[in-house]
Amino acid sequence: MPMIYLDNAATTAPSSEAVKEALCFLGENFYNPSALYRASFAVHKQMEEARRSILSHIADPAKFGLIFTSCGSEADNQALFAGARRGNFVTTEGEHAAVQHAAEELSRRGIEVRFAKLDRFGRVDADDLLRLIDGQTSLVSVIHVNNETGAVNDVAALAAAVKKKSPRALFHSDGVQAFGKIPFRLTRDIDFYTVSAHKIGGIRGVGGLFYKKGASLRPLIFGGGQESGLRGGTENTFAIAQFAAAANRKFASLTEDAARIAGIRRFLMEELDTDIFSVLSPEDGSPYILCVSANGLRGEVLLHMLDDNGVMVGTGSACSSKNRYSRVILACGIDEQTADGVLRLSFSVHTSQEECRLAVEIINRCAKDLRERMR
Amino acid sequence: MPMIYLDNAATTAPSSEAVKEALCFLGENFYNPSALYRASFAVHKQMEEARRSILSHIADPAKFGLIFTSCGSEADNQALFAGARRGNFVTTEGEHAAVQHAAEELSRRGIEVRFAKLDRFGRVDADDLLRLIDGQTSLVSVIHVNNETGAVNDVAALAAAVKKKSPRALFHSDGVQAFGKIPFRLTRDIDFYTVSAHKIGGIRGVGGLFYKKGASLRPLIFGGGQESGLRGGTENTFAIAQFAAAANRKFASLTEDAARIAGIRRFLMEELDTDIFSVLSPEDGSPYILCVSANGLRGEVLLHMLDDNGVMVGTGSACSSKNRYSRVILACGIDEQTADGVLRLSFSVHTSQEECRLAVEIINRCAKDLRERMR
Repeated sequence: MPMIYLDNAATTAPSSEAVKEALCFLGENFYNPSALYRASFAVHKQMEEARRSILSHIADPAKFGLIFTSCGSEADNQALFAGARRGNFVTTEGEHAAVQHAAEELSRRGIEVRFAKLDRFGRVDADDLLRLIDGQTSLVSVIHVNNETGAVNDVAALAAAVKKKSPRALFHSDGVQAFGKIPFRLTRDIDFYTVSAHKIGGIRGVGGLFYKKGASLRPLIFGGGQESGLRGGTENTFAIAQFAAAANRKFASLTEDAARIAGIRRFLMEELDTDIFSVLSPEDGSPYILCVSANGLRGEVLLHMLDDNGVMVGTGSACSSKNRYSRVILACGIDEQTADGVLRLSFSVHTSQEECRLAVEIINRCAKDLRERMR
Repeated sequence: MPMIYLDNAATTAPSSEAVKEALCFLGENFYNPSALYRASFAVHKQMEEARRSILSHIADPAKFGLIFTSCGSEADNQALFAGARRGNFVTTEGEHAAVQHAAEELSRRGIEVRFAKLDRFGRVDADDLLRLIDGQTSLVSVIHVNNETGAVNDVAALAAAVKKKSPRALFHSDGVQAFGKIPFRLTRDIDFYTVSAHKIGGIRGVGGLFYKKGASLRPLIFGGGQESGLRGGTENTFAIAQFAAAANRKFASLTEDAARIAGIRRFLMEELDTDIFSVLSPEDGSPYILCVSANGLRGEVLLHMLDDNGVMVGTGSACSSKNRYSRVILACGIDEQTADGVLRLSFSVHTSQEECRLAVEIINRCAKDLRERMR
């Protein structure tokens, strides 16, 4: 049975062309970029070109730097532990597990952590966020695109408002579900910004932390001075080159892709059986994520049934798939029964209209069957 | 010009067979192992098989666990920050930059750090190490194979002696240059042990931290509960599978390979021009590393000359190639002039006798030429 993959927010299929382009770094160009012979230096140069290329997609390389980490979670942890070293840390109830659990660790280390509320779609309540910020705030972290509902926070505006209220506070955003998917450029009010390769056709093993030049950053992983002394460990040149190639592809057609995927998302919103499904995502959310709830059904049971019938979807974040209710969905003020029925459909450039036409039929049929059986 | 690669301690060429075997995780098996559909579960199962396979090479899986990190440096950092949370931390002057710089950070965080001296080959002085340990010692870290000289520390014996003196102290060893290269199994006195894939034909993007079950470990990277809650971030299944395949190859012929490489090392020790070169490595060091000094010459200059003539070597650790003198070499009590002339030749299973016959001629000729020119 050909499977329809609608869980691209968990991970995307790596771009096979980008993999092919980068394979030389596992072959004839395998050298350690920190060594001193010419072959190493050539690898180092190619790595720096990859860095500049990725940087330029969303930032002015004169004003921002980029360090390569091993994943988005590492970049989030580094930003939080480097930025929130005194006073209080302000974040939201809608963060990815990496920020949420690093925040809990900050709290154990004696930093006061304050969580801003969400609206019913998963967007942060800007007034609440600003109310929490004071002269003692060292860092603010707001997710760019909510990884469960797809709600988009206007991080440029939020960062500007934060700086206006407390110029000393640093501003971080987890942009893992935004980078390469929605149009965006870093502004001077944003100090740190997290990205990940494997959500846009890159491979696992590399993420990135953009930082405003001059913003005080320090290592999470201490080591041999790689990444301007900000991240120890031999650089993962294969993953970095593949990331740059995948990002080039994504950014070359970002607007057209987003428009096409938005059409697919709209189609699904319209075609899902409204007797059963309610849409939890906002209309103006990321085109790549559609969060719905199958009222009265368990999302996990429906997920397995869909899997048996050729459609792969998620229930909330894959990173917290062990909990029955999503912390973030509950923080949207959604009741437990609705939260229990959550399915997350998420798309990539490879998702086709035809697949989704088929998927929506299967989803409606399975949900109906399941409801019948439960009567 | 065909190049002879003698810098395998910096990184090895990935095993192309192991890469080929694992490529499916970038293709048809790209799924996130934490998702709930069957294809993901299958990937998860394969990852657990890889873990068990790697574990079993040096440990009893009933007594030890293994978490996958992104690299050896991350594993070192995690062991140190998890283990050294009170009292004092005891380590050696011969550690890799990851341990050295994490130790400096511990010191900034208020942990007393004590460094044990080395003998002239880079082995830790066991008496000095034990003298530094007291009832307040929370963690001891001793590198297994010195990455610059190849000196082997008997970590099993050291760990036993440490536990005898201070049963509460945890024991960590960085085994990056030992794993898959010298015969060794983890004993009950060792709590944490660091390994890295890319030093044995694996690829960059994955390392590992072995831990004794029951030893208190905590995350360095907080996130979505992956790796038993000990390491956030979507698991790098491609790198993990490739690591397991490369390790299988290495361990299948570890003893034979080590004997053959020891022959090559002995040949080089004998054939290098004794008018110019002195050997800094101990006779009984790792077969895979030979550290020499070209007396009166600058290692870096000789390195570039060798590069021009077809031989790639290192000067000390690639991780600290920006410093003129190696901290570790100076800690062996070696004078600055000798330290300035250091070359590190390091081998892999692919290193051939024939290559080394050629290499030694080139090295002797270049060193002689350079000395002539400097007169």
